[in-house]
Amino acid sequence: MKVAKFGGSSVANAEQLRKVGNIIKADPQRRFIVVSAPGKRFKSDRKITDMLIELGEVHCNNGQTDEYVYPIMQRFNEIVEELNISGEILESISQSIQSILHSKNSDPEKMDALKSIGEDSSAKILSAYLNHIGISAKYVNPQDAGILVSNEPGNAKILPESYEKIYNLRDSEEVLVIPGFFGYTKNGKLITFSRGGSDITGSIVAAGVKAGLYENFTDVDSVFSVNPAFVKDPQKITTLTYKEMRELSYAGFSVFHDEALIPAYKDEIPVCIKNTNNPEAPGTYIVSEKKPSEKCVVGIASDTGFCSIYISKYLMNREIGFGRKLFHILEDEGISFEHAPSGIDDMSIILRESGLPIAKEKKILQRIQADLHPDLISIHRNLAMIMIVGEGLVRTIGLAQKATTAIASANVNIEMINQGSSEVSMMFGIKAEDLDKAVKSLYHVFFE
Amino acid sequence: MKVAKFGGSSVANAEQLRKVGNIIKADPQRRFIVVSAPGKRFKSDRKITDMLIELGEVHCNNGQTDEYVYPIMQRFNEIVEELNISGEILESISQSIQSILHSKNSDPEKMDALKSIGEDSSAKILSAYLNHIGISAKYVNPQDAGILVSNEPGNAKILPESYEKIYNLRDSEEVLVIPGFFGYTKNGKLITFSRGGSDITGSIVAAGVKAGLYENFTDVDSVFSVNPAFVKDPQKITTLTYKEMRELSYAGFSVFHDEALIPAYKDEIPVCIKNTNNPEAPGTYIVSEKKPSEKCVVGIASDTGFCSIYISKYLMNREIGFGRKLFHILEDEGISFEHAPSGIDDMSIILRESGLPIAKEKKILQRIQADLHPDLISIHRNLAMIMIVGEGLVRTIGLAQKATTAIASANVNIEMINQGSSEVSMMFGIKAEDLDKAVKSLYHVFFE
Repeated sequence: MKVAKFGGSSVANAEQLRKVGNIIKADPQRRFIVVSAPGKRFKSDRKITDMLIELGEVHCNNGQTDEYVYPIMQRFNEIVEELNISGEILESISQSIQSILHSKNSDPEKMDALKSIGEDSSAKILSAYLNHIGISAKYVNPQDAGILVSNEPGNAKILPESYEKIYNLRDSEEVLVIPGFFGYTKNGKLITFSRGGSDITGSIVAAGVKAGLYENFTDVDSVFSVNPAFVKDPQKITTLTYKEMRELSYAGFSVFHDEALIPAYKDEIPVCIKNTNNPEAPGTYIVSEKKPSEKCVVGIASDTGFCSIYISKYLMNREIGFGRKLFHILEDEGISFEHAPSGIDDMSIILRESGLPIAKEKKILQRIQADLHPDLISIHRNLAMIMIVGEGLVRTIGLAQKATTAIASANVNIEMINQGSSEVSMMFGIKAEDLDKAVKSLYHVFFE
Repeated sequence: MKVAKFGGSSVANAEQLRKVGNIIKADPQRRFIVVSAPGKRFKSDRKITDMLIELGEVHCNNGQTDEYVYPIMQRFNEIVEELNISGEILESISQSIQSILHSKNSDPEKMDALKSIGEDSSAKILSAYLNHIGISAKYVNPQDAGILVSNEPGNAKILPESYEKIYNLRDSEEVLVIPGFFGYTKNGKLITFSRGGSDITGSIVAAGVKAGLYENFTDVDSVFSVNPAFVKDPQKITTLTYKEMRELSYAGFSVFHDEALIPAYKDEIPVCIKNTNNPEAPGTYIVSEKKPSEKCVVGIASDTGFCSIYISKYLMNREIGFGRKLFHILEDEGISFEHAPSGIDDMSIILRESGLPIAKEKKILQRIQADLHPDLISIHRNLAMIMIVGEGLVRTIGLAQKATTAIASANVNIEMINQGSSEVSMMFGIKAEDLDKAVKSLYHVFFE
């Protein structure tokens, strides 16, 4: 059996929901459906969740809420009318909103409850629509589904005992439609996950019912092997391992809310990213393991906004505790870094530029100077990182050659290479201005 | 003016000392001479210093010392006779030894005093010989030279006030011959440097007199660009920077006792490694800075005996303090590591195999498992490191390509690349069994 999760664009309006209906109809294995709140219908449109947050903020500041409730109800009304399903749902949505606004709960509790309305309404509407088109379906509230969470408003964590209860959902004969993004504490308080939390619900339900596949429906056919901003019509990735996905998402690929995948990852449930608008496309599979024959370079990820602090000192290598003292200074100044490759008498600290504000730079340099007396210390900004991703990379003779040849032939200097710490990727640091030509050249060598 | 230091093989017998005399005669700039104790004359020979240490150990254990003193005096006797210089020196050496053996000093003090006899006698002999061949020369005791040191027997540290006093040696009209390896505390106690300490004395004197050049005479023509064990007749290095020398000596090149060079390094005094047996050869210069035009790959160093601990964990990158906790475990277990390259969700710890005894392995893996819950942890032994050394390396487009191509064409897989932490070298980790072919191929590409 499959768990299918539909994102915001897949439930944004009646037309999209009809596609969702067809997708569910097409495969009787799709027995557990998790939905997001209605997203944008066009570029300048607003997401229902953003409108609900705004409503909540106005309410908590004692403002007039009517004019904020109206456009939300308007969106739901349009969907319900166009789908030709019972208006009772609208009544129930409106009542839910009003009862939250008039409750005596604390502001954070009200906020979480309001934020959940988008997903909750989506689920009610879809369930009604499925029945309308002849699929026996049922809305299941997360509390009834067994999604028990910690009491951290806006940042709920699943409690382990949930999974046993969720497993019982398998007994249902109907297609179950569950709103994403929230759960309930043991005391019955509604709490939301972090933003993007419908992915989390989907992953939890997939792990709970021990699904054979977790389908994640979005608005793209698949994950691309390189950012289409660099290369026109890049190759699609058919299969990724979890690790490969992690490496890709580090450097510019927003494949997935990767923390969301932990429950599916732990139970080794394969995930498939598919397109609601083109369900025939095979999509991209995320799996625990690949066959050795499938091991190759899957993607080239890249990101800008890195910088490095370079420190050199004669005989640094002999100075016990040099690294520890340096890390202590950084920790003390609240600087978190990504990597710290070290040479014999030198060390580089690679960090996101956002983590080293210009205002802090002087103080940090002074502290390092005063405490560690380096011969040389310098900061290099405007670096970009390129990651060549593929499991089993380090075991391929000639791969580094292929990559460095591609970069050299683009006439780009390599500032940093980091290979070997990861068996999944090889990382190159270059000047940000060279990124476009380096990525193009690498894509050419590995994919064309 | 120049400081010339002659190592053990250069003062091992009369024949060698004649060469030293000629070298000093050939250049009137050679005004400060530092000498080691007589070293080996042939492969199975013994060094005077080792004989003195043995004598000291026997004496401290209340043994009969005569039979240990005799062969030492024999060696000096032979040199003095062959050089045809006054026998008074022998008398003075013998008296020095006896007065140490009969003094009331502590054992460590006696030991240091005995160990200094080799260098001290070399200096007395050479000074007499120089006068004998018509060079006005004078033996200067380190105390008179101003070499003031800390009171750490066998591990003396120079006191900063020494340099001012040493500077006054410039006023002398004569060639000054100073024994290496020891100095005196402010209270007049004789204390030796660590083993190989004549290099230290040479470097101190060079810094003190502000020499234009510090010549270090050994028994090789120059430093080679690669270990001759891998490549027959490799290219000689004409100029090295201090940093390059450090990187080379890390991985198998025992170019120099590099801590010894600190005084010269700090004062940016160029050093020249020359051959007493072939003084016409240009030798290898060690300088602070190279002209940009001279920047290239100077050498390929390599060493075996490395291993790595590989740790991977899904979302490691998000786990604050993961690295710190890992380092803490290692520190706690007394494991010191060389490098810790990190990927997104993984980290490798590179260390010398000697630092991770098999006996400790199990416990460390268990602790890491228990404290950090990684998905995967493994240890890889029998690694070799290759360093391609040359200042300005990271600024050369295509250099990584050249190196990786050389390694791939030797059909060797690269386990690790570390470039960018150092501006002086690029480091490759490979399997130890592949070392020979990888080094040969790299040498071919960079030097042939």
